[in-house]
This record gives sequence, structure tokens and C-alpha cells, in this order.
Amino acid sequence: MKAVGMVVEYNPFHNGHRYHLQQAKKISGADVTVAVMSGNFTQRGEPTIVDKWSRARAAVMNGVDLVIELPLFYAVQPAHRFAGGALSLLNALGVDSIVFGSEHPEWDFARLVKAEEAFNQENFNKYNATYATQFNQQLKEQTGITLIDPNDILAFAYTKAKINQDYHFELLPIKRQGSNYHDQQIKGKIASASAIRQAISEKGDYWQAVPQVMGDALATIKIIPSWTELYPLLRNQLIQAPISTLQSTYLMAEGLEYRMKEAAQRSLDFNSFMKFTKTKRYTYAHLLRVYLYTILQITQEEVAEHSKHPYLHVLAFNKQGREYLHEVKKQLDLPLITKVDQEMRDQLLNLDYRAGKLYQLFTPVEQDLKHPPIIIN
Amino acid sequence: MKAVGMVVEYNPFHNGHRYHLQQAKKISGADVTVAVMSGNFTQRGEPTIVDKWSRARAAVMNGVDLVIELPLFYAVQPAHRFAGGALSLLNALGVDSIVFGSEHPEWDFARLVKAEEAFNQENFNKYNATYATQFNQQLKEQTGITLIDPNDILAFAYTKAKINQDYHFELLPIKRQGSNYHDQQIKGKIASASAIRQAISEKGDYWQAVPQVMGDALATIKIIPSWTELYPLLRNQLIQAPISTLQSTYLMAEGLEYRMKEAAQRSLDFNSFMKFTKTKRYTYAHLLRVYLYTILQITQEEVAEHSKHPYLHVLAFNKQGREYLHEVKKQLDLPLITKVDQEMRDQLLNLDYRAGKLYQLFTPVEQDLKHPPIIIN
Repeated sequence: MKAVGMVVEYNPFHNGHRYHLQQAKKISGADVTVAVMSGNFTQRGEPTIVDKWSRARAAVMNGVDLVIELPLFYAVQPAHRFAGGALSLLNALGVDSIVFGSEHPEWDFARLVKAEEAFNQENFNKYNATYATQFNQQLKEQTGITLIDPNDILAFAYTKAKINQDYHFELLPIKRQGSNYHDQQIKGKIASASAIRQAISEKGDYWQAVPQVMGDALATIKIIPSWTELYPLLRNQLIQAPISTLQSTYLMAEGLEYRMKEAAQRSLDFNSFMKFTKTKRYTYAHLLRVYLYTILQITQEEVAEHSKHPYLHVLAFNKQGREYLHEVKKQLDLPLITKVDQEMRDQLLNLDYRAGKLYQLFTPVEQDLKHPPIIIN
Repeated sequence: MKAVGMVVEYNPFHNGHRYHLQQAKKISGADVTVAVMSGNFTQRGEPTIVDKWSRARAAVMNGVDLVIELPLFYAVQPAHRFAGGALSLLNALGVDSIVFGSEHPEWDFARLVKAEEAFNQENFNKYNATYATQFNQQLKEQTGITLIDPNDILAFAYTKAKINQDYHFELLPIKRQGSNYHDQQIKGKIASASAIRQAISEKGDYWQAVPQVMGDALATIKIIPSWTELYPLLRNQLIQAPISTLQSTYLMAEGLEYRMKEAAQRSLDFNSFMKFTKTKRYTYAHLLRVYLYTILQITQEEVAEHSKHPYLHVLAFNKQGREYLHEVKKQLDLPLITKVDQEMRDQLLNLDYRAGKLYQLFTPVEQDLKHPPIIIN
């Protein structure tokens, strides 16, 4: 079977995703579609609007054949690690091509990757600017291009991963409207994920923009997952834990732990906390990721150790997906997990498990232990 | 000036406390009354119904002359440590007598203390019974008496502390009705603190049982402080922290950390969590104290270290209290603290400070840093 892979968050799954999926099938000529999807937290470090099971179900009911979870240690990461992790899983699954959106699919991303190799690393030492800003300064000098749109940044990262890892699948970029992504209004059947989330938080109408199954799941939301809800947990951890514990948190660096502790002591609400911790050095997305790793008490060592042992956690599939799994099962280099047992809970999948327990603030559903995959016939 | 001391929680301050205060003045013949009061958490390990400042204000507006905070490392403790800590502060303050309630003031508590010295320590090794049960078995064999009522247990502890430390103040027990304490109904102007708390949680009428100033404070409650509210923080700590961290928690022993971690993973609500962790070995009060130290991430080492450096944190006083402080100030062996600065926040008063930050879940009031004492003229 010829397979096409996609890297997705589906937060939530909407009509635009269904359209993208149809395009992916068409241009790749594949028989089966495989999505590697973030779990209960997004790349930006935010809780997803509904849990991974609801999103995986919606995906398979709308044409994706197989949904694999992108483990937390790949999912909640800067773009290059997110993309690198996702592609390593799709490679393990033996896909023939990967389709992804890009605001500029006409760009020669391989040329940009080549340009980066010549970057002067000493130019990344400014502490009053983000890494991305310093990266773009050099990229512009050498190529005249700057990577600003989120899908272009991922396209670059996919291309870099393919080149560095010598992956054999094809990369197939398709046009994605840059403006749509930030569009905050639902105007027709196709709306951005953030516009849909906005509508939900304002108790507005989002039904026209999502398939029925996703709309049903969104209608069950009682507490909208957000950092406002997570903040009391973050605050308590920052106040109660000793600095040495905070220091060992993954992504914590350059004294940010002191700044965060002080901010937590002073701030009773999330917005003032976030303003207090923001500097020119870090983007909000980076800070949100640090906040999440802090609540989860995930250390640098844990991420390093878990990253050495990736796995394929199956969330959902249909008949086509099952056949594909059957076909590739024997050649897989990574463990294929369909049901998490107690040992996996404490070892291999421990980070996802802990993230799932945190996510239970928003839903009573057990996220991992003994949860079977969703099978759509 | 002749001073009488009292050890109180005032959770909340009610008409019975005012009556007790008048009796204390009368039988002691004192000019000034000094109360050592638990902060924002009770001896049982529960958050108080309103914060320490509101309770201290009500106390001074109703006849107490000086309120000193009982530090967390004395306040949230089994009876003997609670009583021992409180009496050490009253001794430092130079009181002439201490008045306390007892269900059996006629008992010779000194005789019971004497009896305990002859106890066989090997008889405390049953892991399927609480310490209190095993204590009472031996006490009954030797004296025919069992200590069951809460104020009798404290009376015993006060007597023991006085004997062991050779304190010079007098102990003056007064009659306290055992049944009143557990009475859950407000029937007149005198009601138990738990009956008043019950009325608040049921949005019932409690005004007749409390002075105006306390009623006003109770009327401002938005979220009733309870373990139901604290549970998400406890749950997250138990799930995310490594066993080694949980193991180092103060009062954590005998593998309770494993039981609590497992219970947290399984239980989305506090009641089922508590049932899961209960054994014959520990009382609910003991478990609540362990839960609190877990949320606050307070270690055995921290309690040991902080217990070596007690202090007198002044919460409230009137003219009489000020005069008394002025009189004793020069002979004090302990630091007298009227305003917490940044260094005290991070050092001497760090445990109270952290408990106060946790308590901010229930009130936006800064509990320690730069908070001046309440002065009633």
C-alpha cells in the first residue's frame, strides 16, 4: 500500500483539515493516510480544546486512516524538534510521502537549509532577542528570505530533517493561506482552528466550520482548557519547589527559574504572571512550553532519556489503517503500542501519561492506562 | 502586668470563644490576655474558614489584647507538638498562667503524664492501629482513664510540656462540654466552630453565634476553603513528583507515598482519594497533615531546621497588648516580628509564607510579606 503521512494537531479537527486531507490523497496518489498528531498539549505548550481521543475519532471519521500520537517529548517543542520527531515516526511507519501546508510552497527550502549550515553560531548569543529573530537576521543576509509564517517554519524544519536523516519519503508542500491562520472570525465552512476556539470561548456558533462528530465533542466542553485554568498548579509548583528543582526543568535556562518564582509569588492571575515573565529573549510559545514542563516536573534528563526510546502509540484507525498496520508491523523499528499497561505507564509512556493526568482537569476520561484505540469500521 | 495565655484556632472566632476569654480573665486575675493562634491551617491540616488576619482582628475586637501566630511547624502537628510549640511561645512571652478548656478539668493530668513515662515503647509497633489507640490501651491499664475528648488530649499535652520544660506559669483548666464540640447545629448564641462552618457551607444563618466583625468577614467568603478545593494541587504534586521527593516530605512514612501516588492517579475527587489512602494505622487528621505538607513540599529537614528557630509573629493587638509587648520586649529570647521583609520571607518565616501563598487560592490578600499587624485602639 502506498501511504501518505501528515503532521497535525487538529485542535480542533475542522473542515479545512478535511479539505487538506483530500488534497494530500490526490497529490500523493496514496492508498492510505497516516496522521501523526499531538496528544493533549500543542506545540505551543497549550492544552488542546478537546482530548486526543476525541480529535483522533473525528479525524478517522473524516478520512484519515490511522492516527498515531506524537509523544510529548516531540510534540511540545520548538519547531525543529517537533518536525524532526514527527518525521522520525512517519519514517518508521514507512510512508512514501509527506504532505504539509506552507505559505510559500514555491520556495526552495533545501537551499535555505544549506544556507543555515554556514551560519555563524556566535551570532546567537544576544540575550535580548529570540533565537528566531537572530536566525532570520542571518537567513536574510544570505538568501534574502525570512521565515515568519508558522507553516513555512515547519516546512523548513521538515526539509532539514529529511536532508539530515536521509529519509526516502517525498516532501509535498501545498499552498496554505498565511492570513487564514490568524483569522479570528468564522465566515464560512472553512475557518481557522483559532477562530473556532475563539467562537467556543465566546459561546458562539462554530458548527458550520467543523464536521458533526467534532461539533458533538466540542459541545460537551464544560471547562475550556486554558492556561488560566492551569495557572494555580503552575503557581503552587513555582512557589513551593526549591530553586534546584525548578532549575532542572526541561527548557529552563538562564535564570528564568528565579524570574518565574518571583512572578508566581506576586501574581494571582495568569495574565499578570505571563507579562512578568516575558522578556525579549523568549517568545510566548517558548515560555508556555517551559510553564508546562514545570507543572509536569519533567526534567532535562527525563526528556533526554525518553527521547532515546520513541514509540508508536496508536490512537485510532479504520479498516484501511488496520491493513496498513498489518502490512508494516513486521518491519517496524519502534514499539507499536495499542494499549498502555502499568509498566508502560511508569516507564516508556510515563511523560504522556503524566500529561494525560494533568489534562484530566478538563475531562474525567482516563487518557492512557488501558485505553484501547478507537476503531471505526 | 499580669498576663494570661491561651492557645487558640478561632476557626472562626465565635461567642463561645468570647465567653471562654472572659472566664480566663476572671480565674487568672490577669491584666492582659495573649492568644497564640494557628495561622491559615489548623492542627487537623485543614485550611481555616477565613484567613489569620480576619480571625486575629475579630479576637482583638472582642477582648484579646495580643495575638501571636503559631508557626506552621508547630500548628499543623499532632497534639503533643502543637501544645509543646504553643507553650514554648507563651513561655517566651512571659505569661503568668495559661487557661484552656478540658472535658475533664478535675482529672490529675500530672498523674497521667507520670504514668506515660512507664509505658512500654515496644507496644507501639502495631501497624494496624493508630498511635492514639495504642497509647490509650496502656494508659487505661495503668490509670483506668482513656484520653478521647480533643480538649482532654490537649490538656494532657500542656501538662506534659510544662513538666518536661519546667515552665513556671500556672495551668488553669476550665470545664468544656465534650458534646458541644461535635454539635452540628446552631441552637443559640453559643455554638461550636464546626456547627458554624457547617452553616456557612450550607449557606445557613450563623450570625447569632458570632460577633459582628467575624460575621462580616464570613460574609465575604467566595470560595469556602476546603480540601475539595486543594485537591487538584495535591493530586498534581503526587502524580508529577518523583517518589524520592514525596518520600522526603515531612510526616511521610512507611510507604504512604506509594499509596498516595496510586490513589491520586486513580481519583479525580478528594473523597475517593481520601478513602483510598485511609488505613487503620493513621487517623484522618494525620493524613490531612501529610497531604498539606505534600502540597507545600515541606521536607523533614525543613521542619527540623525551622523548628530550631522559632519566632513571635505579631498579628494583632490593642493598647493593652502594645503596653505588654513594650514591657516584655527586652527580655524576649525569640525574635519579635511585626513586619515580614524579603529576607524573612525566604528564611525564617519561609514555611508560613508558603502556606500563606497556598491560602491565596481562597483570598487575594497577601498573607505575610510587608503585612503590618492589625492595631485596634
